[in-house]
Amino acid sequence: MTKADQSQRLLTEYLAGFLTDQRKQKIEDVLFLRTRYVTVVLEDIHKSQNGSAVLRTAEAMGVQDVYLIQNKNPFRIHDGVARGASKWLTLHRFSRKGQNNTPACFAALRQKGYYLVAASPHADGWSLEDIPLDRKLAFIFGNELEGLSDYAYHHADAHLRLPMYGFTESYNISVSVAITLAYVLPKLRRLDVPWPLTGAEKAELRLKWYRRSIDHIREIEAHFWREIAPYAPPASN
Amino acid sequence: MTKADQSQRLLTEYLAGFLTDQRKQKIEDVLFLRTRYVTVVLEDIHKSQNGSAVLRTAEAMGVQDVYLIQNKNPFRIHDGVARGASKWLTLHRFSRKGQNNTPACFAALRQKGYYLVAASPHADGWSLEDIPLDRKLAFIFGNELEGLSDYAYHHADAHLRLPMYGFTESYNISVSVAITLAYVLPKLRRLDVPWPLTGAEKAELRLKWYRRSIDHIREIEAHFWREIAPYAPPASN
Repeated sequence: MTKADQSQRLLTEYLAGFLTDQRKQKIEDVLFLRTRYVTVVLEDIHKSQNGSAVLRTAEAMGVQDVYLIQNKNPFRIHDGVARGASKWLTLHRFSRKGQNNTPACFAALRQKGYYLVAASPHADGWSLEDIPLDRKLAFIFGNELEGLSDYAYHHADAHLRLPMYGFTESYNISVSVAITLAYVLPKLRRLDVPWPLTGAEKAELRLKWYRRSIDHIREIEAHFWREIAPYAPPASN
Repeated sequence: MTKADQSQRLLTEYLAGFLTDQRKQKIEDVLFLRTRYVTVVLEDIHKSQNGSAVLRTAEAMGVQDVYLIQNKNPFRIHDGVARGASKWLTLHRFSRKGQNNTPACFAALRQKGYYLVAASPHADGWSLEDIPLDRKLAFIFGNELEGLSDYAYHHADAHLRLPMYGFTESYNISVSVAITLAYVLPKLRRLDVPWPLTGAEKAELRLKWYRRSIDHIREIEAHFWREIAPYAPPASN
């Protein structure tokens, strides 16, 4: 165990003393079902409220990572809509001004081993039942007005066509995400694929969530490093 | 066949002449998958936008009937949000001023043979897998702030607890409806229960949808009754 790991462990133990048993149990329950095997990617969402509703949905469903591509439209979190979900999620923003950020996001996802599935009507699109669960999946949703960009459409590994049985030709984004995740996640959790977090991922998130759950965390953590920790705090905290 | 039925049939045939084959095929496709076996009930939704998003979701999923209970909050359809879904749906409003409209709505649903399932956290609540599909089901969703009324909560036949895996303690209403319908409907459509519309229901909706699909329908229909129909138009049209 490195010094950094040991410090993380000691800090986590120290902070645990500031939480109720109920809170700690809740955090363990969420960690147990959390996944990074599936992720959600939002490409240039027009209305931040819609994107914020997706954060709420993804968090409640147990997805840890959301990728936010901002090309023309800024993404601001509306906490009333997101219901505080962003506090628990890991958000990955791709938002360089004056450039198309979709390629950089796709490259980052591929580097992490994700298979890129674009939600869009497409002649050869998968239905929900067709999605293979033997690989990490990134589900990409386009914006409310134009859908996915040409780049996203053509560079995805596969297309997903959500079931539509009526005259209405699309779902809103949080509904699309909900339909996808509500189908994929329960199925995934019954499979013997590495969907759960690793021990190291759990340790990192546990510490992050402990921090988010404690009032006056700055003062408490400063006290820990000053008075209790055997080592100096890690450089990036 | 009664005169009214015969007039309906003749009018439908006449109006078919004003529609493209593609449009008629679309209408038949939607009729084929449409159901009244499952319905959605919204109790006193606070923000009409949220209720309108539910209309879009329910229509796209193939549910024909939505029951709207208005107690304290008026329900106005936001067409931008509903995406025209209300045009195709049958909406049942229970909105008498100065009274609790939930009992009247519940009585109407029971009279039509629906089993009332309230979406709410409840000690003995069903999970999605527990929902029996051998009976007509009305799924009742409460408002964004207080959830279901005491009356709805206590007078439902069963409670449904949606899967929640994160810290966020609820889904927004259209997401809740989507999760429920996306689970129930595909399963239902594979079962040998009377979920499809009857021939008479299809005939009635076909005519309604033809009317909604044709410009200048008033003039065209007036011409039909004046010049073509062998009988006078039915009293209630």
